[in-house]
Amino acid sequence: MSNNLKAALNPKSVAIVGASDNPHKVGGRPILFMNKYGFKGRVYPINPARAEVQGYKAYPDLASLPEVPDIAIVALAGEATVQAVEQCAEMGVKVAVILASGYGETGAEGKKIQDAMLAKARAAGMRIVGPNSQGLANFGTGAIANFSTMFHDLPCIPGPVAIVSQSGALSQLIYSLLHKRGVGIRHCHATGNEADITVAELAAEVAQDPEVKLLLLYLETVNDPDKLAEAAAIARGRDLPLLVLKSGRTQAGQRAASSHTGSMATEDRVVDAFLRHHGIWRASDPEDLVNAAELYLKGWRPQGRKLVAVSNSGATCVMAADMAEEFQLPLAVLADGTRAQLNAILPGFATTTNPIDITGALLTNSSLFGKILQIVGKDPGADLFFAGIPIAGTGYDVEAFARDAVDFIAATGKPLALSVPQDAVAAPFIRLGLPVFGSDRQALRALDQLAAHTALMRRRRKAGAAAPARIDIAAGGKGFLNEAESLALLAANDIPVAPQRLCRSEAEARAAWRELGGPVAVKACSAEVPHKSEFGLVALNLRSEDQVGAAFEAQWRKLGEMKVSRDGIIVAAMVKGLRELALGARVDARFGPVVMVGDGGKYVEALKDFALLIPPFDAEEVIESLDRLHIAPVLHGVRGEPALDLEAVAAIAMRLGDIMQAGRGRIASIDLNPVMVRAKGEGATVADALVELI
Amino acid sequence: MSNNLKAALNPKSVAIVGASDNPHKVGGRPILFMNKYGFKGRVYPINPARAEVQGYKAYPDLASLPEVPDIAIVALAGEATVQAVEQCAEMGVKVAVILASGYGETGAEGKKIQDAMLAKARAAGMRIVGPNSQGLANFGTGAIANFSTMFHDLPCIPGPVAIVSQSGALSQLIYSLLHKRGVGIRHCHATGNEADITVAELAAEVAQDPEVKLLLLYLETVNDPDKLAEAAAIARGRDLPLLVLKSGRTQAGQRAASSHTGSMATEDRVVDAFLRHHGIWRASDPEDLVNAAELYLKGWRPQGRKLVAVSNSGATCVMAADMAEEFQLPLAVLADGTRAQLNAILPGFATTTNPIDITGALLTNSSLFGKILQIVGKDPGADLFFAGIPIAGTGYDVEAFARDAVDFIAATGKPLALSVPQDAVAAPFIRLGLPVFGSDRQALRALDQLAAHTALMRRRRKAGAAAPARIDIAAGGKGFLNEAESLALLAANDIPVAPQRLCRSEAEARAAWRELGGPVAVKACSAEVPHKSEFGLVALNLRSEDQVGAAFEAQWRKLGEMKVSRDGIIVAAMVKGLRELALGARVDARFGPVVMVGDGGKYVEALKDFALLIPPFDAEEVIESLDRLHIAPVLHGVRGEPALDLEAVAAIAMRLGDIMQAGRGRIASIDLNPVMVRAKGEGATVADALVELI
Repeated sequence: MSNNLKAALNPKSVAIVGASDNPHKVGGRPILFMNKYGFKGRVYPINPARAEVQGYKAYPDLASLPEVPDIAIVALAGEATVQAVEQCAEMGVKVAVILASGYGETGAEGKKIQDAMLAKARAAGMRIVGPNSQGLANFGTGAIANFSTMFHDLPCIPGPVAIVSQSGALSQLIYSLLHKRGVGIRHCHATGNEADITVAELAAEVAQDPEVKLLLLYLETVNDPDKLAEAAAIARGRDLPLLVLKSGRTQAGQRAASSHTGSMATEDRVVDAFLRHHGIWRASDPEDLVNAAELYLKGWRPQGRKLVAVSNSGATCVMAADMAEEFQLPLAVLADGTRAQLNAILPGFATTTNPIDITGALLTNSSLFGKILQIVGKDPGADLFFAGIPIAGTGYDVEAFARDAVDFIAATGKPLALSVPQDAVAAPFIRLGLPVFGSDRQALRALDQLAAHTALMRRRRKAGAAAPARIDIAAGGKGFLNEAESLALLAANDIPVAPQRLCRSEAEARAAWRELGGPVAVKACSAEVPHKSEFGLVALNLRSEDQVGAAFEAQWRKLGEMKVSRDGIIVAAMVKGLRELALGARVDARFGPVVMVGDGGKYVEALKDFALLIPPFDAEEVIESLDRLHIAPVLHGVRGEPALDLEAVAAIAMRLGDIMQAGRGRIASIDLNPVMVRAKGEGATVADALVELI
Repeated sequence: MSNNLKAALNPKSVAIVGASDNPHKVGGRPILFMNKYGFKGRVYPINPARAEVQGYKAYPDLASLPEVPDIAIVALAGEATVQAVEQCAEMGVKVAVILASGYGETGAEGKKIQDAMLAKARAAGMRIVGPNSQGLANFGTGAIANFSTMFHDLPCIPGPVAIVSQSGALSQLIYSLLHKRGVGIRHCHATGNEADITVAELAAEVAQDPEVKLLLLYLETVNDPDKLAEAAAIARGRDLPLLVLKSGRTQAGQRAASSHTGSMATEDRVVDAFLRHHGIWRASDPEDLVNAAELYLKGWRPQGRKLVAVSNSGATCVMAADMAEEFQLPLAVLADGTRAQLNAILPGFATTTNPIDITGALLTNSSLFGKILQIVGKDPGADLFFAGIPIAGTGYDVEAFARDAVDFIAATGKPLALSVPQDAVAAPFIRLGLPVFGSDRQALRALDQLAAHTALMRRRRKAGAAAPARIDIAAGGKGFLNEAESLALLAANDIPVAPQRLCRSEAEARAAWRELGGPVAVKACSAEVPHKSEFGLVALNLRSEDQVGAAFEAQWRKLGEMKVSRDGIIVAAMVKGLRELALGARVDARFGPVVMVGDGGKYVEALKDFALLIPPFDAEEVIESLDRLHIAPVLHGVRGEPALDLEAVAAIAMRLGDIMQAGRGRIASIDLNPVMVRAKGEGATVADALVELI
């Protein structure tokens, strides 16, 4: 199949079924573009009414072609499309690109026709792009099986960026945003309804094009996560940044998406976790998707996040410091030597702490800009550089600033983002190929992203547990395991659980009390009552044998009244912790196992203070996730309290991942709430657990 | 004084001390500009070396002038500046605009000279702009006492926007950002070091210019909050939107600000609360400050926040829905009649729910855009309109879209923000004066801001408590009141506190137990031990007389061991609540009394889940503040729990505001933690309180 895909991106011959001599009709534009962008293969217009189309010899039908074309662009409407696709399949065309709309996106009727076309293609081994697709465009080879007007209105700047999009409009919007910035493009593909070929599959193919240096995707649904993971692996393997704009982030967005493409909704945080897991950067909107393009394309991959900011305006320095804190970019602490050198060249009242305020002195001494860059470029504590020039113009030697910036980059190889909002002032920088942003925020956001994405791309996960998880569940089980069984499953996999005894008589309960010592919890155990506290079936902090005995009796009786299975009554040691967290795991219908770590208590769902992880992951990733929580400040110790044992939390989370992977197809979800977390080095213990089978 | 300020903005005569015949020198540019922008008053260049300067008769010195000028621009350096300022003051000049830098911003030495100039001016009743100021520019009258190169490089588009900025660079940046959007400007003033005249004072003056329709401020410090409040009141009084960009939002930003202007830091959330209180919109960066300018200037003041989104791209519809949810703009639910009309004109598969996907059908039927706008414009449930056109070009009748948008606005008077990222497609819309944004996010953010700011500007606070607060504190008190005194102060002002008795013997404690009944707390009471729980001086949930007696004895002894005042031991009823909140109040050095409402517990400072309010405020504002908290979802009842009595919380917060205002100069801070909040209608009770005196 992959060979067919390669042919799709780099065909030797292209037939256009429904070819038009009018270069501005749908059936005319691909021919116009292949001519314009220098396609070296063979172009076969199919048009029974003409001997020639746009200067190419035309053929009356597919059967008359001198060879079987690699690609057939089907630029017909209605029933004629279906017939042409069938004919292509029969004659051995590798890929049909179906431009017409009116299929799966219109409802059940259209979906039926689409499925029928797909079945015919599958049977013959032909792949389909679309229907309802803008088509494929490879500007590297000139193979433009695409009818976008954009490639006519804004002629392509050849370059290293690839765009693969479900939506045709978005493929063009991204193209136009890059065009506006003067960034060159190599691929621009839109998959439409994805009856067959998906964005992920094309992305995996495009990622192998050595000329591609930046890969941008637009998705409304992740139709094949495994293929997207494969594309990401290929990209990481060659240091190719892969960015995704995935819409339908919110409930409103998902409703809008499903009314327009029939897409299936999945919780958006799972998408976040999946993309992060695979080193894919997630953009928040089309402008954000292209914002850091120039920085990636310079090949910059910073080692750290420490920022130096320079400006000729004190106000810009203040705002850059504000934004740096917002983006969690620490301001580099300049070495004494660096500051001494700065002091030697800056006026007395200028600021030589970072951010560096050149002040209006720049107007009378244009060399200051370059000199300062030279000095700070050598500071060992600086990873990222920002220069903000909110104003300049008459009197400033902006050409010199631009040359100095080029010299800085050549000398240091370090990332420099310039914020130059005035067009006339920006022009000299742009002419020299420097990355210029229209605002401080865009420039700093781009540096933040470059550093964070580089770290994601370069992450090497530490190997997980040596022992595979043990899933010892009675065959045929369904629904919930009771608490005792749930805890046993965890314990069998080395997750620390509270000491407890399952008792079936008051005498056993009293014996358990004597054995466990200290305060205990007494909890009814029934697979039919997973949420026992709602029924008054939990008694905490019991401090005498009599209390335990009475609690046993009360709960045993209550279970009887409820007419549910009486699996027993648990007597468990009250385990202590500095804080209660909640951990969990479940199987997402699309993305598979997902592990959750978050704040504990009864408001997990309401407050949503949790983070998701896709297994496998390592302890560092769990701790990073915990650091994104609202309660993060408390986890590291405040008010003189010790830091929590986050390593222990991470170990439980990782083991949950192992269990979910080993229990695939058997375990639907696991909830651990509360997990009592003690001080660093003192561990964490699961106090209650609930496992649900599939 | 205000008359002098009026003269500053609209002088009859302007002297330029240090006038230059070279229009690109600091002393030449104001003359160039007054000439260029048609100043009708008298211009007096002072230059002992020339008879004429840039075509104006020159004078050798101030003494030779035929009249005392309203304004003197001092364009000299060093000691000459000081002499000129003194001379201006002596002769009765109303306002001196000092352009030179090298004063307060450079350190103590410069500050001394600045203070001396100010003293001379004050003595003579002369006002000072600057020093270190870019100057004043009134394009309405052509009075440009300003040396910005920007007014030469980007000639002013006359219009209704006023800019007042501490920073000269920022005044120019904001000017250039508006210029790029084609938005016209009337005032552009920069105050520099603010030895005398502040941004707030100028803003209060500019707000009275009837030609000004939008007022934009840049501040690094709020040097005179009362004056800013006055400016805001004037602005609200004539429906003039007032926006502030206040930098130094973060600790890093405040450090940068203080190294560059010596400004005093204040907690940024107080600034937020202050601005909100006065109906001032706070922008996050310069681009954000100007982003909604066109919408304000159309005079649109929407009644609500319900959004209709329209696009020719399904993907844009999905992303618009995502962003609407992010901005908390509810998508309007279209009336059945509206949907029926849409169904009649849109292709079958197009989406007639909101967002409305016109689909590619727009290419073949250009009238669809206008027809859809017409239909949704009449829907009674819609307040705000967004139209996204990510792609168009060859084949689309964009001119018709633009005319249809103009018709929509004329017919409905409702706000319409267009997102048209391609420059060529945007041009016809811009030519017709429509508000066009470069991205969906900018357009939706502008609509969000317009609706939210309109609501802020139009807020009418409900009157507070009839009874003034009673502050009955022994004269000469300092430091902390003990808990009993603190609670008494609250109770005297009708704030519900837990029933309690202050006991000085075990017998009294036992009697208190019998009187109060139910579980009690026993707490040591000493003004010298404000944080008693840290010393083990709190026993909660005591359930027998003996326990109470023992706790009294232990705490009494402990106080003795600590050698602190033994004010007594409190026996208090344990009050119940569904949730513990924390309330408080304190006096900010700059902004005065501030009231805090937030989540309770010991992590108030660490988790910062609180909101601040400036008194006076009403219950609605308290509840809105609570709704911005992380714990907000829990406050309204989740998991079948009842909603909390937020009205009761609001009543306490409002009364705290009254107490702080009545206790001004006496009370430094009040902490109520925990406040036990019960279900709606059942009230809230303060369980612990700490009042600190000044």
